[in-house]
Amino acid sequence: MNELKQPIRHMKINSTMTVNQLVNEMSGAALGAGRLAEAVDIYEAMIRDKTTKFFGLSGAMTPTGMRLIIKDLIEAGYIDVLVTTGANLVHDLIEAFGGFHYKGTSQIDDVNLRHQEINRIFDVFLPEHHFTLFENRLLDIMADIDKKGMGIREFLTEIGLRVENSILGVAAKKGVPVFCPAISDSAIGLQAWLYTQTQKLSVDTFKDMREFMDICYNAQKTGAMLIGGGVPKNFILQSMIVTPKSFDYAIQLTTDSPEAGGLSGATLSEAKSWGKVAEEAREATVYGDATISLPIIVAAVLERLG
Amino acid sequence: MNELKQPIRHMKINSTMTVNQLVNEMSGAALGAGRLAEAVDIYEAMIRDKTTKFFGLSGAMTPTGMRLIIKDLIEAGYIDVLVTTGANLVHDLIEAFGGFHYKGTSQIDDVNLRHQEINRIFDVFLPEHHFTLFENRLLDIMADIDKKGMGIREFLTEIGLRVENSILGVAAKKGVPVFCPAISDSAIGLQAWLYTQTQKLSVDTFKDMREFMDICYNAQKTGAMLIGGGVPKNFILQSMIVTPKSFDYAIQLTTDSPEAGGLSGATLSEAKSWGKVAEEAREATVYGDATISLPIIVAAVLERLG
Amino acid sequence: MNELKQPIRHMKINSTMTVNQLVNEMSGAALGAGRLAEAVDIYEAMIRDKTTKFFGLSGAMTPTGMRLIIKDLIEAGYIDVLVTTGANLVHDLIEAFGGFHYKGTSQIDDVNLRHQEINRIFDVFLPEHHFTLFENRLLDIMADIDKKGMGIREFLTEIGLRVENSILGVAAKKGVPVFCPAISDSAIGLQAWLYTQTQKLSVDTFKDMREFMDICYNAQKTGAMLIGGGVPKNFILQSMIVTPKSFDYAIQLTTDSPEAGGLSGATLSEAKSWGKVAEEAREATVYGDATISLPIIVAAVLERLG
Amino acid sequence: MNELKQPIRHMKINSTMTVNQLVNEMSGAALGAGRLAEAVDIYEAMIRDKTTKFFGLSGAMTPTGMRLIIKDLIEAGYIDVLVTTGANLVHDLIEAFGGFHYKGTSQIDDVNLRHQEINRIFDVFLPEHHFTLFENRLLDIMADIDKKGMGIREFLTEIGLRVENSILGVAAKKGVPVFCPAISDSAIGLQAWLYTQTQKLSVDTFKDMREFMDICYNAQKTGAMLIGGGVPKNFILQSMIVTPKSFDYAIQLTTDSPEAGGLSGATLSEAKSWGKVAEEAREATVYGDATISLPIIVAAVLERLG
Repeated sequence: MNELKQPIRHMKINSTMTVNQLVNEMSGAALGAGRLAEAVDIYEAMIRDKTTKFFGLSGAMTPTGMRLIIKDLIEAGYIDVLVTTGANLVHDLIEAFGGFHYKGTSQIDDVNLRHQEINRIFDVFLPEHHFTLFENRLLDIMADIDKKGMGIREFLTEIGLRVENSILGVAAKKGVPVFCPAISDSAIGLQAWLYTQTQKLSVDTFKDMREFMDICYNAQKTGAMLIGGGVPKNFILQSMIVTPKSFDYAIQLTTDSPEAGGLSGATLSEAKSWGKVAEEAREATVYGDATISLPIIVAAVLERLG
Repeated sequence: MNELKQPIRHMKINSTMTVNQLVNEMSGAALGAGRLAEAVDIYEAMIRDKTTKFFGLSGAMTPTGMRLIIKDLIEAGYIDVLVTTGANLVHDLIEAFGGFHYKGTSQIDDVNLRHQEINRIFDVFLPEHHFTLFENRLLDIMADIDKKGMGIREFLTEIGLRVENSILGVAAKKGVPVFCPAISDSAIGLQAWLYTQTQKLSVDTFKDMREFMDICYNAQKTGAMLIGGGVPKNFILQSMIVTPKSFDYAIQLTTDSPEAGGLSGATLSEAKSWGKVAEEAREATVYGDATISLPIIVAAVLERLG
Repeated sequence: MNELKQPIRHMKINSTMTVNQLVNEMSGAALGAGRLAEAVDIYEAMIRDKTTKFFGLSGAMTPTGMRLIIKDLIEAGYIDVLVTTGANLVHDLIEAFGGFHYKGTSQIDDVNLRHQEINRIFDVFLPEHHFTLFENRLLDIMADIDKKGMGIREFLTEIGLRVENSILGVAAKKGVPVFCPAISDSAIGLQAWLYTQTQKLSVDTFKDMREFMDICYNAQKTGAMLIGGGVPKNFILQSMIVTPKSFDYAIQLTTDSPEAGGLSGATLSEAKSWGKVAEEAREATVYGDATISLPIIVAAVLERLG
Repeated sequence: MNELKQPIRHMKINSTMTVNQLVNEMSGAALGAGRLAEAVDIYEAMIRDKTTKFFGLSGAMTPTGMRLIIKDLIEAGYIDVLVTTGANLVHDLIEAFGGFHYKGTSQIDDVNLRHQEINRIFDVFLPEHHFTLFENRLLDIMADIDKKGMGIREFLTEIGLRVENSILGVAAKKGVPVFCPAISDSAIGLQAWLYTQTQKLSVDTFKDMREFMDICYNAQKTGAMLIGGGVPKNFILQSMIVTPKSFDYAIQLTTDSPEAGGLSGATLSEAKSWGKVAEEAREATVYGDATISLPIIVAAVLERLG
């Protein structure tokens, strides 16, 4: 019976384990533990193999405590291309501008919060006046940016060059392009609207496609680490439909199930039918909150890389 | 004890019920049934109250059997503003161009499908050659469109004017604006890239913001029907942050839970802390597959409206 | 291309649809709508085919508005064997004894509810004094029941014979056996504990197994309608492991996904590997809240049966 | 603004972190990471505070690689009362009897597996002949057990005394009672049925209630670690309804959301309205696969306890 090759090895926990030792124990188990251990193996291989490493960042990651992880991954050279949502950039910029997010609770009267001018992101509180801070700084930056014929990537690089202590700043410094196809769907979009009431700002929607496609075409090997679904996941994967390549490595950390049919929850196997992920690709999906799975994966891989 | 006013009324099912009669039985129940009945009440009120009706369309709705419902809602005047994803537009256009989606299964070898050039969307199969059809038609349309200084909404209207039997076509005819902030994140974006290899096409990312904000500012009352989360949900709700208004009616049909913290699963109560949804708004969230909940809501409301 | 046989037929909604007409429209669609329509077909066939019809009832169904549906299904002869949880029986008995559950809300201070002696089941409120009512009535019934060598099924029949207006009562009248393997895990168990402080009550844990197995052995054909997972689902399915049969029809209505690995979320395909469900069985899983899917299925099937 | 006291502290990952160091980084974050860190704090306090520690074990934990963790927790004195499902006991016994579970995949033809006599538990494979092994051993043990007037707990202790290398064996040795209210809903129940075809075996359903209640009454302080929902969760929590106490500490690791209304997904806050969990209790819910969260919590707490 071919199927019965590798017995489950039950996890043994002790009081002095490193994260990678814990992950190695998980590698003998099934379900989430097994998938997480596999994701660590794949992420390690993706990095060692010198692939072009795409990173899709959705969900509420920068306001909830994950912004340093992203910045450090860029600094370390483990992200070559970042695709993200406007919200993740906005909440990162708010902190880069000196604002804070606060530990809160989801068990609270939201109308009361409204009266206190506190915005809630599940169990995170954000004082509304931080948006005023954000607004002032961003309008200044917009005024400073040369406004002709930019794509969104270029526009974000220009912001990054002016806000050092941010994800965009680190990316700009490292030459890592940041793509954000739905940028108008964020406070950046709202500020752009305010700004364009009186000034001119022209950012082309489709211009980034060529740069993104060129990256795909020029890559020797490709890998994708997808945090959540949404536009970042689809944008990264769809590029392979029109290129002769497919992703050689793919990991997704998600809370979405396939059954609802949306792209966010689609399996990486489904992506193979489209040619987005290679037939023989190494791929793993870790179901669950990425604020748990991402730090584990990063810590274990850093430990392995020494 | 104030809290104990309305006893649960147990559902009574018979063999000749209309959808609205079923919903009326659900109105005495709790959990999903109660929430669905409440959503029907709110959607009916939203329509009768002559609000400006926003419709957010995410997920795999047009390839899975829901495209006529959307078209008919627009035709009937029940959608004033549509915000959607590129994928929903693409799969609708594929059918408008004469292509089909097919009933399939998720229990299948995706590599095998790949060899047959069949793309899978959970339990839907799509022959890849339909994208060739799509490509040819869209490139022709792009060549026909005047290319200076458009926003995305305008670009989509231009497509709609050239593809009558589509959601975009019906919307264009009815004067219903369609917004798709992440349009480059779709096969339309991929085609735009192909097109701009040799031709010029300039679509501004931020231009739509003014039109969208003007709609919000000019609305007497506002209502939002949100199918899934993603960019459509956030784009519709965020507009209220910078306007003096908030949504008076809001319904979301979703499979996402709040606990993961992403905007897609955020409660409409959370949206009140931001001022996106009004303190005293009527709002309901129906958890579950929108291919079930949306048709029920629409059928029940149509029955009520006569 | 074999896989491309049945094009998606997009749903058409009108203002005078019966539930079954809606379901027939769903039958051309994919995702949840398609699965729901398939479940209706299977449930209809299961009933017409005169199978032995098992019904697994988990979750908070009787307190939330579904108790009449269960009673009416038993009355109509559409349930031959009921397997359920103690909680569903307790909350049904509370209403049969004259108590009520109330529409409430999940957005409330639970400590405050505690001070008001109101118990919460998500958005249902239950005054604690109803448990006193339950306690008094059940202790009387226990005192009235002959206590030697009963199995759980027999014990429940005895209760049913004394509480006409309950699920147990209707089942006893119709001769439908009700199994509740985890009966001690409920307020019935708690009352049995109180009762046995001073009286004798002996109910055998394993005695029901023979009766249950005999039903399985004697059945010509078998069908299972599984509402939620838990003990009812497993208990119904596991019987087939030690019989030469397997379920010919199986439907599950669930909010659990397979990925977590628990039996509650396990697919009916997985059950085939165990021989619980027949290789060639007709089976469907409808993901979502059963307070929505069950009434639809029942209404549509009743309509079809006339 | 009272609500804005503790800024989110962004996680910093390095290459030599122990599991507890990772958890300490998580403690500054929100969402799942924050909840996981809180669960570690609570579990540590629960153990240091010398509470009576209840452990609820549902889901597919023993076949998937977690059996040593449970055994070691019992050995270490960190579980005083275990409440579990029949399946977790069965799959642990299978390994104690010399059988194995195997790493498999969920992407497989279940009918084919059936033909190979391999049972699937999501991504775990189990050769069916291991059940023969289980059957033979259990029938011998049953024949060896004195059969008069036992409760389920006692019956399980008797098994434990005869299978040293099992969870039941370790529990019996340490004097930790194991409760399994739904024992007939498992292969143990199926074997009991086979056995009672020819022999006598009498196990009382309600007898355990007194022992369990006595534990609750005699406890100074109480804590509950709940892995998954189902009978174990409810059985542990319901005991407090009829005692003057409530849980002082409570942790649940679950993939179920509250919205569906079932007890498995119910919040620990909801449990406060019932008096199951104390008003001022320390409680946390970690959403996600327990094969990930449980090992992390255990490793971090062991590290803290030294």
